[in-house]
Amino acid sequence: MNSIITLTTDFGSKDGYVAQMKGVILGIHSTVTLVDVTHEITPFHVLEAALVLKGIAPYFPWGTVHVGVVDPGVGTERRAIVAYTDGQFYVGPDNGIFSLVLGTKTKYRIHQIVKPSLMLPKVHSTFHGRDIFAPAAARMAQGFPIEEVGPVVSDPVLLNVPSPTIQNSEMKGQVIHVDRFGNLFTNIRSTELKGSIATMSIAGMDIPVFGRCFGDGHPGQLMGIINSFGYLEIAINGENASAKMNLGIGSSISIVFN
Amino acid sequence: MNSIITLTTDFGSKDGYVAQMKGVILGIHSTVTLVDVTHEITPFHVLEAALVLKGIAPYFPWGTVHVGVVDPGVGTERRAIVAYTDGQFYVGPDNGIFSLVLGTKTKYRIHQIVKPSLMLPKVHSTFHGRDIFAPAAARMAQGFPIEEVGPVVSDPVLLNVPSPTIQNSEMKGQVIHVDRFGNLFTNIRSTELKGSIATMSIAGMDIPVFGRCFGDGHPGQLMGIINSFGYLEIAINGENASAKMNLGIGSSISIVFN
Amino acid sequence: MNSIITLTTDFGSKDGYVAQMKGVILGIHSTVTLVDVTHEITPFHVLEAALVLKGIAPYFPWGTVHVGVVDPGVGTERRAIVAYTDGQFYVGPDNGIFSLVLGTKTKYRIHQIVKPSLMLPKVHSTFHGRDIFAPAAARMAQGFPIEEVGPVVSDPVLLNVPSPTIQNSEMKGQVIHVDRFGNLFTNIRSTELKGSIATMSIAGMDIPVFGRCFGDGHPGQLMGIINSFGYLEIAINGENASAKMNLGIGSSISIVFN
Repeated sequence: MNSIITLTTDFGSKDGYVAQMKGVILGIHSTVTLVDVTHEITPFHVLEAALVLKGIAPYFPWGTVHVGVVDPGVGTERRAIVAYTDGQFYVGPDNGIFSLVLGTKTKYRIHQIVKPSLMLPKVHSTFHGRDIFAPAAARMAQGFPIEEVGPVVSDPVLLNVPSPTIQNSEMKGQVIHVDRFGNLFTNIRSTELKGSIATMSIAGMDIPVFGRCFGDGHPGQLMGIINSFGYLEIAINGENASAKMNLGIGSSISIVFN
Repeated sequence: MNSIITLTTDFGSKDGYVAQMKGVILGIHSTVTLVDVTHEITPFHVLEAALVLKGIAPYFPWGTVHVGVVDPGVGTERRAIVAYTDGQFYVGPDNGIFSLVLGTKTKYRIHQIVKPSLMLPKVHSTFHGRDIFAPAAARMAQGFPIEEVGPVVSDPVLLNVPSPTIQNSEMKGQVIHVDRFGNLFTNIRSTELKGSIATMSIAGMDIPVFGRCFGDGHPGQLMGIINSFGYLEIAINGENASAKMNLGIGSSISIVFN
Repeated sequence: MNSIITLTTDFGSKDGYVAQMKGVILGIHSTVTLVDVTHEITPFHVLEAALVLKGIAPYFPWGTVHVGVVDPGVGTERRAIVAYTDGQFYVGPDNGIFSLVLGTKTKYRIHQIVKPSLMLPKVHSTFHGRDIFAPAAARMAQGFPIEEVGPVVSDPVLLNVPSPTIQNSEMKGQVIHVDRFGNLFTNIRSTELKGSIATMSIAGMDIPVFGRCFGDGHPGQLMGIINSFGYLEIAINGENASAKMNLGIGSSISIVFN
């Protein structure tokens, strides 16, 4: 069985935390393929991890197990869960980290991890990633039945991403993520951009070009583009728009339609 | 055979050094599972790597081969070694990088790597990670007998981690590592914290809470906690204690018992 | 079949771009071994990636597929290619990213990727790494015949690395890469350093030592060394020569022979 476990955390790459998780997983399931999604989530920023998980899940095969650990509440009463939707599993804390994946689905099931056989014999109250989520993920990848994980969770914590608003002919949205290149990922889906656009601006600055690829941008100027996730993105061809224009998460977008 | 090789280095992630090592390993042992522990050890800081290796080894299965390369003395007379203890192998320079793993054991064996079949045909004097440690690790993962690696090393280089001291009712320790979250890892083991604690302080600042999980901390205030390695750690719930309080490696801890 | 796909990109490690590529690859070829070379190429710097790829390729086994994606021209008319030379495959944009690997070979073949079965059903104009190069690499690793990829490319984009010049008894070269340790990688090959060296300098500063390993350097002083790629490198033993001496890409090297 060639199963896959992906890892999305805020653990960084300088300590041994991620390696401890991998050691635990490989000790249980030696043939699994491990994929690091990222360990550079801003510490404690659950929503950032939720956005990344939503972006990557559709590209992984049936049966993939995604572990997400951004877990400021570790050791408190927050639940540990396994969620299942669309052929894939999600293992982590019940703090909303999987809610964007689940939020767009009408069918999912979530169970609370309570079965001791899914955990290490000793669970430390500061590192459930290693002591609960890693072994639980390894078992799920081996085919452990989700209904035996623990009680059904019917009220998972859900996070909200701000939705764009529309009034008269103006749509207002905002930047929800800045990527490595300084491109500004907005909350406006390509499917919401119906009709002919008169003007587009960000934080009051005009966006003169709406292109199909980065090469359509003019040197040094802001451009709009539909990114590879299907959302409107503001960029500058070959440059870091965020740094150059001092824009970031929360920057407001205005689109006026004809 | 599903064997594992882990890699702990100060090579960073922007150059091709680690990939060259992996290419060499996979060319010898194509089915091995490679695990990056970290490549972000501060350049030349052997002790930092030694601490990471000690932390991760217990979580890996029997037979795992750990490669450690923080090697400022590469090309000089320092020896290349394979060490074995507690069912796992360690491959790297004899400069103390494995000494914290070995230091807590009463039984280990170490051999100097001299066998040419364990090295690449041409060994460059600046990169034994690629030309000696990578191929030697691949062979060890394939089951090469350690007694044939080369002569026994009975006097390995050992590093010292400062131990906490106790006088009257006061224990003094220090910070030995700062993790990604700014949590301050001390040299005081949980097993040394016997008795009832009257006060705890770091660099003269009072630590008002000694909690079980980060959520026990009060907003913005220092807290003590036993970390997932079994050591006292000083933290601030949801914040970076190191940056906020200007604390780091060497900061002094004082614990007064009742 | 234990095949290997390596990944060299400027995508960084905080977004989900690389994971999306890996999900696509594993969905097609579940048993492939994935090796991250680096995702920290300076954004848009094709030459930097070309240098890394040239450095790592010789250490990978026959049949390895190297994916290189530094692709500022994505979505424009630039071609997508598969190249083959010396037993290995290269998949990425035709912008010179593979030209240093190809440039030293007299025999290679390159085909443009046009076959729809090598791409995802929907190709987005901003992310060919995921939608073309990842699936094409997976197919190549499965043994897809290169001659069926698409038309032959006889005029690939080639990049030039500046060559050292020699006049009378003075050779002039320059720094072309700075590594993680601050070591300054020059464009002068060890094989070009024939004859006895009278003086060596960088940016007008004398380099008093030409050593065999870093330990031959004097504390705090510049040294020359032949690095593990076979090129002259300028370093300071145990220190960051680039930061300390304010040297970087483009710094001029002068070598006067006796």
